[in-house]
Amino acid sequence: MSEKPIETKVDEAQTAALELATLSDERRRAGLEAIADAIDEHHDEILAANEKDVTEAEKLLEAGEYSQALVDRLKLSASKLEDISEMVRSVAAQEDPLEKTLEARRLDEDLELYKVAVPIGVVGTVFESRPDALVQIAALGLRSGNAVILKGGSEAAHSNRVLFEIIEEATATADVPDGWAQQIEAREDVDAMLAMDDSIDLLMPRGSSAFVSYIQDNTSIPVLGHTEGVCHVFVDGEANLEMAEEIAFDAKVQYPAVCNAVETLLVHEDVATDFLPGIVERYEDADVELRGDEATREVVDVDPVTDDDWNTEYGDLELSIKVVDSLSAAMGHITEYGSKHTESIVTEDADRAARFMRGLDSASVYHNASTRFADGYRYGLGAEVGISTGKIHARGPVGLEGLTTYKYHLEGDGQLVATYAGEDAKPYLHEEFDAEWTPGRLSEK
Amino acid sequence: MSEKPIETKVDEAQTAALELATLSDERRRAGLEAIADAIDEHHDEILAANEKDVTEAEKLLEAGEYSQALVDRLKLSASKLEDISEMVRSVAAQEDPLEKTLEARRLDEDLELYKVAVPIGVVGTVFESRPDALVQIAALGLRSGNAVILKGGSEAAHSNRVLFEIIEEATATADVPDGWAQQIEAREDVDAMLAMDDSIDLLMPRGSSAFVSYIQDNTSIPVLGHTEGVCHVFVDGEANLEMAEEIAFDAKVQYPAVCNAVETLLVHEDVATDFLPGIVERYEDADVELRGDEATREVVDVDPVTDDDWNTEYGDLELSIKVVDSLSAAMGHITEYGSKHTESIVTEDADRAARFMRGLDSASVYHNASTRFADGYRYGLGAEVGISTGKIHARGPVGLEGLTTYKYHLEGDGQLVATYAGEDAKPYLHEEFDAEWTPGRLSEK
Repeated sequence: MSEKPIETKVDEAQTAALELATLSDERRRAGLEAIADAIDEHHDEILAANEKDVTEAEKLLEAGEYSQALVDRLKLSASKLEDISEMVRSVAAQEDPLEKTLEARRLDEDLELYKVAVPIGVVGTVFESRPDALVQIAALGLRSGNAVILKGGSEAAHSNRVLFEIIEEATATADVPDGWAQQIEAREDVDAMLAMDDSIDLLMPRGSSAFVSYIQDNTSIPVLGHTEGVCHVFVDGEANLEMAEEIAFDAKVQYPAVCNAVETLLVHEDVATDFLPGIVERYEDADVELRGDEATREVVDVDPVTDDDWNTEYGDLELSIKVVDSLSAAMGHITEYGSKHTESIVTEDADRAARFMRGLDSASVYHNASTRFADGYRYGLGAEVGISTGKIHARGPVGLEGLTTYKYHLEGDGQLVATYAGEDAKPYLHEEFDAEWTPGRLSEK
Repeated sequence: MSEKPIETKVDEAQTAALELATLSDERRRAGLEAIADAIDEHHDEILAANEKDVTEAEKLLEAGEYSQALVDRLKLSASKLEDISEMVRSVAAQEDPLEKTLEARRLDEDLELYKVAVPIGVVGTVFESRPDALVQIAALGLRSGNAVILKGGSEAAHSNRVLFEIIEEATATADVPDGWAQQIEAREDVDAMLAMDDSIDLLMPRGSSAFVSYIQDNTSIPVLGHTEGVCHVFVDGEANLEMAEEIAFDAKVQYPAVCNAVETLLVHEDVATDFLPGIVERYEDADVELRGDEATREVVDVDPVTDDDWNTEYGDLELSIKVVDSLSAAMGHITEYGSKHTESIVTEDADRAARFMRGLDSASVYHNASTRFADGYRYGLGAEVGISTGKIHARGPVGLEGLTTYKYHLEGDGQLVATYAGEDAKPYLHEEFDAEWTPGRLSEK
């Protein structure tokens, strides 16, 4: 990795971004294929670097500073590397998100407006210490024509350096503009990035909620990120209780460490006595630690809940339970304590489901399905860039589309605004029509 | 205007926002009709309040602190009030931007995902001292189901207070949720808003570029705004010079005070001798103050340009001219000095036009048309919320759509993620299909 200052790296990324924006779909795909091939060809080099990271991490594990889970996530193998190059090829296979015409409107005869999808530009990313994260983010950036600044976790420093060099070299041979990907390692460089609002168009931090908040609070660059996931399942009085039990179980137990797992189960009082004993038994068999409010504890024997539980993302086999007396009370609880991530109602009553889905301000609202479906792959978005708990630009699971913006192309024939203003103003047509923008649209007619 | 603290106002707006999100198109339109009628019925009251603002402004005009233009903009009349209520009715007539299904995807049999347009929530706005601005922003907010915090210029304080009361009363009688619109007047309240990232979803400041930058630098709330408009017209070597002259003239002279007027004219050296004398004569006849680089001054007699001119938004009858030796040089200049607002190339060569349009990172890029078309009304977006020079969420002229976001509705039949994971994972269908989300979609089958 070169020792260029961060300002030079971001400058180079800006220059590359302009070229990337006009790079054909074919060449961007060829760049990705080159990355995948290079990873396949450099297993030894990558695994040797990774071994250094793992050794250092194991020392810290012995010292009690790291968890086994962290060490496991760090560790690469030949088969994991195959998965990674496979992932890169699947990103290459995704439909091109660029230069689609999103809208076409005829303002007047021979005055055609096209809204065209384009890359965002320079995207600064900071991500967790899984070495596959660097490859994934670089791949998504290239697919969508964005220049990327990559800052990975220091635990994966050796692996990331080698992976970055491989990516840089592979894309250079595939004629992707130099400088499209830049790696930074120092925490000071992250802070320097936060001030570069003239040259960085978007920041995408991944990591703890505290870290994402820190980024948001210290930059005027737009931030796409994910803070907390305090998700709810509401078992309505009109629920099919068998279905409710399956959903409540899946939403907590299938994979409790992720942001779309349920943290609070809300149960309508009409079904509390019928529903709670069965689900509590299943949870306890699966070692879920349960806490309940008073009404819950009248029906089942669980620990008392505290007010802090309601807005805690456990990320583990823990769950809080509350009995509510109405749909409104359930919605009120979610509005007060939720993080606007994902909520599900289980009910046979379509109108009640619609009230729940319309009335809650969460990125994903479900009717009779597990909250665990909130994920870019499951949503069919292809690769996932991340999940956004913000409401601006992209919300919920974010795919390649979230890495694009648009620009207006206007094709005219010498039209002047003066013609359409004042006393004898010519009226606009403003007709939507169906066409892709292509160079010289008007002259071809 | 009530003397509630800003925190109370924002709380009320948040509560109202949840109700507004489920308010039918019909009731939102009825609210707007009620506003328009109320304005029609209260001319005397509004004009009396406006008279106070104008009197105060005239005193400051005499003292040399205000400009005549500012006083003119402040002043209302019966006919201006008719225009304002007409504008509100036209916002009501706009197509509903809400609850449209933007995408529908079948994840599996009876597991349907809908991406549905919804309001953003609570939008904080700060705007210039034209009294019609308050009504316009409130109207756009209500049409798109957003609660709005309104902060107008202090010069229009009396007018704004009366207009706000009329709006508040009219929408209350039309059953729009109380508290959907909130007025603030103190500068301290604006600063307080900047810190309320838990309750305000978007800030839309209008005003000077310095003011918008101040807002961006002092909040972690997303900001949609417009900083500078340094727009360019490039007369290519392959231009129809007659057309080029008309466009260059219109882009500067038709209305020089606005952000989409051209500030720098770039001329290819191949046509400089043929093109410059004619356009310079027309500009001079229209009292445009001209500055040129050396090559320009070899052809026409204009003042020398300074480096500062290239990134100055004159907003007046002033223009800088540069002769360039290539399309790339023109693009390089725009990339270096432009503000990514609007640029136009005049050329008969479609490929050169395409290079210009693809290669520049501006919100609007034109071929053979005046930069002055960059405007929400001309683009056919209906009413314009503002123009964004950012690239995230909404870019260029922003219509009602820019005041919406989306949310995912998932309709299931008890589906669990466990079914689609692990060894015997059921594959997803991921079929796009054509349907609007309606309550109880699945149960109706």
